[in-house]
Amino acid sequence: STPFTPATGQVDLAVIPGDGIGPEVTAEALKVLEVAAPAELKFAKTQYDLGAERYLATGEVLPDSVLEEIRGQDAILLGAVGGKPNDPNLPPGILERGLLLKLRFELDHYVNLRPSRLFPGSVAPLSDAVLGKGDIDFVVVREGTEGPYTGNGGALRVGTPAEVATEVSVNTAFGVERVIRDAFARAQKRPRKKLTLVHKTNVLVNAGSVWWRLFEEVAKEFPDVTTDYSHIDAVMIYLTTDPQRFDVIVTDNLFGDIVTDLAAAITGGIGLAASGNVNPDRTAPSMFEPVHGSAPDIAGQLIADPTAAILSGALLLDHLGHPEAAASIEAAVLADLESRDPAKQRRTPEVGDAIAARVAG
Amino acid sequence: STPFTPATGQVDLAVIPGDGIGPEVTAEALKVLEVAAPAELKFAKTQYDLGAERYLATGEVLPDSVLEEIRGQDAILLGAVGGKPNDPNLPPGILERGLLLKLRFELDHYVNLRPSRLFPGSVAPLSDAVLGKGDIDFVVVREGTEGPYTGNGGALRVGTPAEVATEVSVNTAFGVERVIRDAFARAQKRPRKKLTLVHKTNVLVNAGSVWWRLFEEVAKEFPDVTTDYSHIDAVMIYLTTDPQRFDVIVTDNLFGDIVTDLAAAITGGIGLAASGNVNPDRTAPSMFEPVHGSAPDIAGQLIADPTAAILSGALLLDHLGHPEAAASIEAAVLADLESRDPAKQRRTPEVGDAIAARVAG
Ligand SMILES: CC(C)[C@H](C(=O)O)[C@@H](O)C(=O)O
Ligand SMILES: CC(C)[C@H](C(=O)O)[C@@H](O)C(=O)O
Repeated sequence: STPFTPATGQVDLAVIPGDGIGPEVTAEALKVLEVAAPAELKFAKTQYDLGAERYLATGEVLPDSVLEEIRGQDAILLGAVGGKPNDPNLPPGILERGLLLKLRFELDHYVNLRPSRLFPGSVAPLSDAVLGKGDIDFVVVREGTEGPYTGNGGALRVGTPAEVATEVSVNTAFGVERVIRDAFARAQKRPRKKLTLVHKTNVLVNAGSVWWRLFEEVAKEFPDVTTDYSHIDAVMIYLTTDPQRFDVIVTDNLFGDIVTDLAAAITGGIGLAASGNVNPDRTAPSMFEPVHGSAPDIAGQLIADPTAAILSGALLLDHLGHPEAAASIEAAVLADLESRDPAKQRRTPEVGDAIAARVAG
Repeated sequence: STPFTPATGQVDLAVIPGDGIGPEVTAEALKVLEVAAPAELKFAKTQYDLGAERYLATGEVLPDSVLEEIRGQDAILLGAVGGKPNDPNLPPGILERGLLLKLRFELDHYVNLRPSRLFPGSVAPLSDAVLGKGDIDFVVVREGTEGPYTGNGGALRVGTPAEVATEVSVNTAFGVERVIRDAFARAQKRPRKKLTLVHKTNVLVNAGSVWWRLFEEVAKEFPDVTTDYSHIDAVMIYLTTDPQRFDVIVTDNLFGDIVTDLAAAITGGIGLAASGNVNPDRTAPSMFEPVHGSAPDIAGQLIADPTAAILSGALLLDHLGHPEAAASIEAAVLADLESRDPAKQRRTPEVGDAIAARVAG
């Protein structure tokens, strides 16, 4: 069988609970995952203790030996990593660049998949006039291995009045074409078959032109997919006034980061937003994680909403070749959301139990 | 007197109506400007025919001689420039980089000022629950002469499968410090005295560190200003669920572009969003323009809303040292918005006439 596609049998699953609410929501995601998975599928879990706490205790972010172990797994489930804001012992970017982005880059997660759906029962910050236009249901395919996230650039004369700091966005035809092709294939499988390229081609003309050219070229292979284009700034307006217009969006790493947080906000909040860091060529394990962070302010109280982590488990099952199992989680989440009583706050494990019970039964 | 600060007497005003609805809204902005200005202030207007139409007709974007003439004016009022979407005769970025950004860079418009206020009577796409939290009234100070807008970067092996395209964000201590200081000074003059730095310091660590360092350094000069920091992705969530938290935002050129369109969307739309491209050192004329584009689809029908252009005129008067005249335009716009009847669509000049009449008294 293709590596990292165990259709049946044992799945070697790396679990990175992380910091703050990460372990709390990961426990619920695993609970639901194991109930939803087909009987023949067994998860052999290995837990990796990575994140702010490990760094603060040991100075280690992601030792090479750990990375190589993780590389040998079939899939990765991640909770959230990150310490207290402005902790002087935690240099900015150390966990992001050294752990999260390192995994995305090393494991070639070039498709950062972020579905956005306004489930009935969840609370959106948009007006009834906007919501009344129809269902909100789109997917963002965010490029995951290039753009301004490469860590290219540097700084000269740091700390002086003559400092110059640069960030280089790197865009290759290789990297842009593969993510665009993946997005077209995803759009083609959806009822509306529509793909929107999001960029800022009128200002970032070099990067914009390679994105534009390959978007037009790959489009020829998918004649049944409708295409359009929006500047990133215009997308801000569309997502708040007419989000129904979107079906699949493909965009670069930084624009994707920004757009998917807005998408999460308008569809009930970051507490519901799941994501997959997918290696579609299956040359390394893919990684699934909620879009939210470690929320140190509410950690340990068991009040975090584990829904985003649970939905990330559904994306994991889908990626492993079990779309029905994934759909059963989504259906259970949907039913749970519809039955939520805003006046009655449940604890994190109660939400997981309720969703697991629906999946089971 | 300081150059470009004619407190009384003649103001040499460059008017660039531009394309599409640009000339229509500019006419109304001038109408209101002349009514609002103190009696002793006379505008000596010179119209510059620049934009897509001129480029398509002559191949010229901004001839050096025209730039030098404009440099000698006291202020600039711009409508909107831009041709039909995807016009094959209009290469992407040619007007943006060759005209709009060229003016911002050449005239050192390092403060791109974008006030966001939800006026009573205007329609916001946010829910009553969000709007009920209080008034929305903040200003974005967007850096205008650096960041990813410098045109640094390039492309290798263009059009081949081996293409590599880069965009370089350039951030200097010189450029970052001056815009941060300007933002602190603006925050200090407002009742809430709060300034939020927006960036992505956890990923863009080089640029992030110079922004962070200078933000903390300059903060010491303004001990009465409260400061905080948000990542650009988190700002997406705050602006849609709790926009009341913001007072003044300072951010880089690209993040500012994105944030101000979202800010415009949540405060009644791009039809109301004004902006100033300000040179606070007054070494060259500042430029005032609506945030919206040339909207070729509705051009010529006289149905465009000139309010954003009219409010840009208020920013111009304020910059020229006439805050009372600016306030009179804002008050008239506010009253006009409150009296708007959504069922009754007025024509562009009718809106301008109504606002001018209110200013007159
Ligand atoms: C934590 C950070 C590095 C990350 C990103 O910018 O990609 C996060 O915001 C996300 O969207 O997954
Ligand atoms: C037209 C474009 C170059 C411009 C920008 O990106 O700054 C516009 O979007 C704006 O916000 O003024």
